[in-house]
Amino acid sequence: MGRVTVRRRVLRLRDSTATRKVDALAAEEPLEIRLGGRPLTVTMRTPGDDFDLAAGFLVGEGVISSAEEITAIRYCAGATADGRNTYNVLDVTLAAGTAPPPASLERNFYTTSSCGVCGKASLDAVRTVATWRVDGDPVRVPAEVIAALPDRLRAAQRVFDRTGGLHAAGLFAPDGTPLCVREDVGRHNAVDKLVGWAVRDGRLPLASGVLMVSGRASFELVQKAVMAGIPVLAAVSAPSSLAVELAAEAGLTLAGFVRGASMNVYSREDRIGAAI
Amino acid sequence: MGRVTVRRRVLRLRDSTATRKVDALAAEEPLEIRLGGRPLTVTMRTPGDDFDLAAGFLVGEGVISSAEEITAIRYCAGATADGRNTYNVLDVTLAAGTAPPPASLERNFYTTSSCGVCGKASLDAVRTVATWRVDGDPVRVPAEVIAALPDRLRAAQRVFDRTGGLHAAGLFAPDGTPLCVREDVGRHNAVDKLVGWAVRDGRLPLASGVLMVSGRASFELVQKAVMAGIPVLAAVSAPSSLAVELAAEAGLTLAGFVRGASMNVYSREDRIGAAI
Repeated sequence: MGRVTVRRRVLRLRDSTATRKVDALAAEEPLEIRLGGRPLTVTMRTPGDDFDLAAGFLVGEGVISSAEEITAIRYCAGATADGRNTYNVLDVTLAAGTAPPPASLERNFYTTSSCGVCGKASLDAVRTVATWRVDGDPVRVPAEVIAALPDRLRAAQRVFDRTGGLHAAGLFAPDGTPLCVREDVGRHNAVDKLVGWAVRDGRLPLASGVLMVSGRASFELVQKAVMAGIPVLAAVSAPSSLAVELAAEAGLTLAGFVRGASMNVYSREDRIGAAI
Repeated sequence: MGRVTVRRRVLRLRDSTATRKVDALAAEEPLEIRLGGRPLTVTMRTPGDDFDLAAGFLVGEGVISSAEEITAIRYCAGATADGRNTYNVLDVTLAAGTAPPPASLERNFYTTSSCGVCGKASLDAVRTVATWRVDGDPVRVPAEVIAALPDRLRAAQRVFDRTGGLHAAGLFAPDGTPLCVREDVGRHNAVDKLVGWAVRDGRLPLASGVLMVSGRASFELVQKAVMAGIPVLAAVSAPSSLAVELAAEAGLTLAGFVRGASMNVYSREDRIGAAI
């Protein structure tokens, strides 16, 4: 579709010098995901790998855990008044027997617990919904391998090089071999695209997988890793308190501040091979 | 409440040396915002300034534009089964005559247009809902002032220093004087807290205001600036295509890649004083 980047004129100021140039910007467009014709959510994303994004989102929310639970994904035809397709509305048809989420997904996910909305309820929700457990995954990953992942992720980012500003998520084997890398203006979307690729390719759970993300590690990123069966998550920047709590409770290895030859390990350090 | 940071044991690996230490993490907890008792949205945020967060969110979505449109904000008492308050559920009471948003806010905002969901519809939605126009704001800001904002923002980040990983939003006068700085694990929350402080203090529209944000400039951040009447938005990192489109259409000055003495200006460069 050629909409991954958009060219735009820009004024570049450097000290007292002003120059005009044409810059490539990361494309951002809304994507509405429908389930059986019913609007489910709207996310602002970089166009591309939209079917994967939808499938991965549904994995993260516990709606599906295998490709067989989806019968079809298609762009809604004639989305504009004049019949033009915007390629911004997707409809997912679930297989018979696969239950759609009740009413509003986002609200439901954190508020099912009787204790109202709190961090503990969020942890409980993930544990209740998760198809797989990652705590028993025996994978071991050398610290040197994790330390090398930011550079490997960066090297695989094709769009970042042109725009200078895109989040990325990469799935790696325990020896650091890259398996899949996805980019998006939204950090969560990049992970959804990756997990969606995996579920549609029949690869879930992603046992022994190492997920490397640009930016910080939030609760929702740990949630998405757990829901995909990924045992190791590494982030370039800081984790939040709830991200660490969920990682510890789910038995996921969480590394943060992975920079140069150093990193912090917040949970399940027994999987980090060297140095311990 | 003392929950802005959470202390946690961590294993620090550096080259082949492993040390244990106690680290401060940025707190992340869900916040449910209710409107007249009806759940509206859940956001993962750093606790603190929650009333401002709720008020600012409602400004961004076009529900309110002045403090008088809110009669009361309160934490829901007895949110847990045993009657303990989680301080994670807020109820906002709107003044008589202030209309709550129809059904689901998030979906509504992008899908009201007859042309289905697309970037253009998103731009139209902001224009339709916005209370103020920023295109007529005559403010001029010297390039040197904008270039200095990242350091000023960073200097005002109290929690970042302890955790190394928190987003921030700062409101500055045209001469670079800081007016308000807010931090949060979520970029949008930091802006909502700032705008909520302003609306509750009777300061909207934020004419002549300069908003500096850590990270990238997304469509939603430009939207929040426009809805608060802020004419200038500067970001440390890259803007998305739709962020630039909305800025250009709304007449907001958008600067990105503000680093050292250089920056890119994507729209309304006439407000950047020097160098042109």
